[in-house]
Amino acid sequence: MGHVDVITRAAKLYDEVVVAVLHNDAKLGTFGVDERIKLLDAALEGVSNVRIEAFAVQLLVEICREAGAQAIVKGLRGGTDFAYELPMAQMNRHLSGVETVFLPGDPRFNHVSSSLIKEVAALGGDITGLVPEEVRAALLSRMQNPEGN
Amino acid sequence: MGHVDVITRAAKLYDEVVVAVLHNDAKLGTFGVDERIKLLDAALEGVSNVRIEAFAVQLLVEICREAGAQAIVKGLRGGTDFAYELPMAQMNRHLSGVETVFLPGDPRFNHVSSSLIKEVAALGGDITGLVPEEVRAALLSRMQNPEGN
Amino acid sequence: MGHVDVITRAAKLYDEVVVAVLHNDAKLGTFGVDERIKLLDAALEGVSNVRIEAFAVQLLVEICREAGAQAIVKGLRGGTDFAYELPMAQMNRHLSGVETVFLPGDPRFNHVSSSLIKEVAALGGDITGLVPEEVRAALLSRMQNPEGN
Amino acid sequence: MGHVDVITRAAKLYDEVVVAVLHNDAKLGTFGVDERIKLLDAALEGVSNVRIEAFAVQLLVEICREAGAQAIVKGLRGGTDFAYELPMAQMNRHLSGVETVFLPGDPRFNHVSSSLIKEVAALGGDITGLVPEEVRAALLSRMQNPEGN
Amino acid sequence: MGHVDVITRAAKLYDEVVVAVLHNDAKLGTFGVDERIKLLDAALEGVSNVRIEAFAVQLLVEICREAGAQAIVKGLRGGTDFAYELPMAQMNRHLSGVETVFLPGDPRFNHVSSSLIKEVAALGGDITGLVPEEVRAALLSRMQNPEGN
Amino acid sequence: MGHVDVITRAAKLYDEVVVAVLHNDAKLGTFGVDERIKLLDAALEGVSNVRIEAFAVQLLVEICREAGAQAIVKGLRGGTDFAYELPMAQMNRHLSGVETVFLPGDPRFNHVSSSLIKEVAALGGDITGLVPEEVRAALLSRMQNPEGN
Repeated sequence: MGHVDVITRAAKLYDEVVVAVLHNDAKLGTFGVDERIKLLDAALEGVSNVRIEAFAVQLLVEICREAGAQAIVKGLRGGTDFAYELPMAQMNRHLSGVETVFLPGDPRFNHVSSSLIKEVAALGGDITGLVPEEVRAALLSRMQNPEGN
Repeated sequence: MGHVDVITRAAKLYDEVVVAVLHNDAKLGTFGVDERIKLLDAALEGVSNVRIEAFAVQLLVEICREAGAQAIVKGLRGGTDFAYELPMAQMNRHLSGVETVFLPGDPRFNHVSSSLIKEVAALGGDITGLVPEEVRAALLSRMQNPEGN
Repeated sequence: MGHVDVITRAAKLYDEVVVAVLHNDAKLGTFGVDERIKLLDAALEGVSNVRIEAFAVQLLVEICREAGAQAIVKGLRGGTDFAYELPMAQMNRHLSGVETVFLPGDPRFNHVSSSLIKEVAALGGDITGLVPEEVRAALLSRMQNPEGN
Repeated sequence: MGHVDVITRAAKLYDEVVVAVLHNDAKLGTFGVDERIKLLDAALEGVSNVRIEAFAVQLLVEICREAGAQAIVKGLRGGTDFAYELPMAQMNRHLSGVETVFLPGDPRFNHVSSSLIKEVAALGGDITGLVPEEVRAALLSRMQNPEGN
Repeated sequence: MGHVDVITRAAKLYDEVVVAVLHNDAKLGTFGVDERIKLLDAALEGVSNVRIEAFAVQLLVEICREAGAQAIVKGLRGGTDFAYELPMAQMNRHLSGVETVFLPGDPRFNHVSSSLIKEVAALGGDITGLVPEEVRAALLSRMQNPEGN
Repeated sequence: MGHVDVITRAAKLYDEVVVAVLHNDAKLGTFGVDERIKLLDAALEGVSNVRIEAFAVQLLVEICREAGAQAIVKGLRGGTDFAYELPMAQMNRHLSGVETVFLPGDPRFNHVSSSLIKEVAALGGDITGLVPEEVRAALLSRMQNPEGN
């Protein structure tokens, strides 16, 4: 929900927001690229100026060039997020001049990170309201059937 | 130079950037409103989509409404700046829904703050390169003649 | 509302919570001692095991001794609060062995500090929901009539 | 010694403190559950209101429910610890309403973490005074005989 | 005691350590220059390669030049100290190339700051062990007789 | 370049600086010990009082004893670096009394870390100016021919 919140708010500030979904064969994540796009589509249904797109793994500044993006938007849950993001923002600016702008996360989602959500869900905790409903259903289904993809 | 850097970079990301200069009779600052506007005009000479404007002291969200601004842009020199700015960003969003977006400051100006600049200048240190030339001249002239305004 | 939240939650964790209101003739605050006690009484109406008490200005460890308190409870809005509170907690433990326990503040009140509230209210901003209703009424009335006490 | 210090101090503030030792077959730690309980028993010998108990791996809020605990106590060595613990505290409160209270660690043990202790011990450094004597003996014996359990 | 600790440790790392005491007529501190030098002399009695010297208020880089110092040594109690000192270190390096090296403070003195010491002493708290004995005596005597200097 | 900068600046503050290169058979790094020494030799060519030396993996305090070093010098890119380094500095002081002194990194290299450099290089980004030329050539050659050593 933190990502959905930041994307939705960014969409009000910019003409178009591109959500980059990365192909990553090596480190197979919880969901495949197609499923992630489908889940994002559902979660961002009412937001018209958002484009969800798959990209090959590459430098983020290359993805920006391909997507025609002038800036990267990142949400910040707190100072630790900022300390982690700052060197990457400076590196991306060094590499291509692309800027990173930071939006403070909604405090209601301060405790929402993908790792903590997965940990809570794996131990049977209720994640209703912390992720979009479609994601919750898909995550529970994946946990009951880890082989499917 | 930190402010000039952030304003110039913001001007590349947004259709228009408004630089708000506040009337403040009570706490007479180093420079009056007219002089601050003149100095900003000189420092931002080549940046076409910046509007420098004086406002009465009031809530920043009211200034945004008057100026037609959809977001506040702030530069961040580091985690301490973020910790200081975050409650104000959340308050402004609470009051009117206006967003605050943060741009990481250029590391070359990490050590540039108005208080440190004034302290160095007052003790005779060379501030060339840390403030625009016009500001340096005005600051030194003001220090030699504190009564003028 | 941040203080009310922390006091209410602390009251569920401890047999009794003492809210210390300090007499401070020198630095006359926004409200006098009697008015602060009255406002706290109203805001904490439903919490039975809270005792609101006035104390002379003195070491906090002395107040703990007078009040029979074994620990000091402080709310933490974030890492900056912790950095500010830690030396005082260590000093109080050094002086008398009294412990300080920290409760993380509710993220909904991250942006609520008495200085920011007063600034927003002074500029005519709406502070409904950020302070208890009684406090809001008293603050607005005080601002229209600064002399009364 | 940091954990022993926090547990001992918490025992003075609460009627009963439960030390939860987790069964964890998957990630076999340095010591098994029985040995950890034995070592804790020795280290906390003089503290009467501490209950050391083994639990299955599960949500911490479930362990609290099983143990009848109203709050989780965590020690904080510094702001980095707090940034790490805060999302988990907020998540646990979100899941079941259970509070997390933080005790600042004793500065004498600021540099004591289990990973640093193991690293120093593995390289032959003297860890006397940094861990309880029983733990030091067990750790050295385990390092000379890694297979035993 | 934090300053004494850092000076004593720095004296082991460098050929000579200069302790700069500033003349400051405008903001009359708790003790005058002569008294501060006398107190430092007593507190640093056994440390042979420390030179205590009075300087006119001026840029710290000028004091370094006058004193023939190649580097500034500062103690760090924690991350907040570092965030505060970093811009000044960068400014001093910018102005004259002089480096600032940071020594982590002894954790036993984490809670010792001049402002907290004065506050505790003013409220009658026992500061034994937190400042050198001579300082404690002088501080108590000054508090009983604020006019003398 | 961050390491080269810190070593070069430390060499101006101390009689001799020892750069410790660790033999590490277990975790074969990007470059072997001999190649790392050769690369450091090239990068530090003009700095006369630097000694580059290989050491067996062992406690850093043992390396200091072997090298005859009285202090460890570390660069700090920001508060996160400090939080990470502080416990190790305190542990090393606890183990042998050896001090760690911190030099603030040059802000121009704030975003330069070995992990980020490797990631950028692996994805084909230009790392000119972020590492010494010899390192850049060696890194690119190693990436095209990962088996060679």
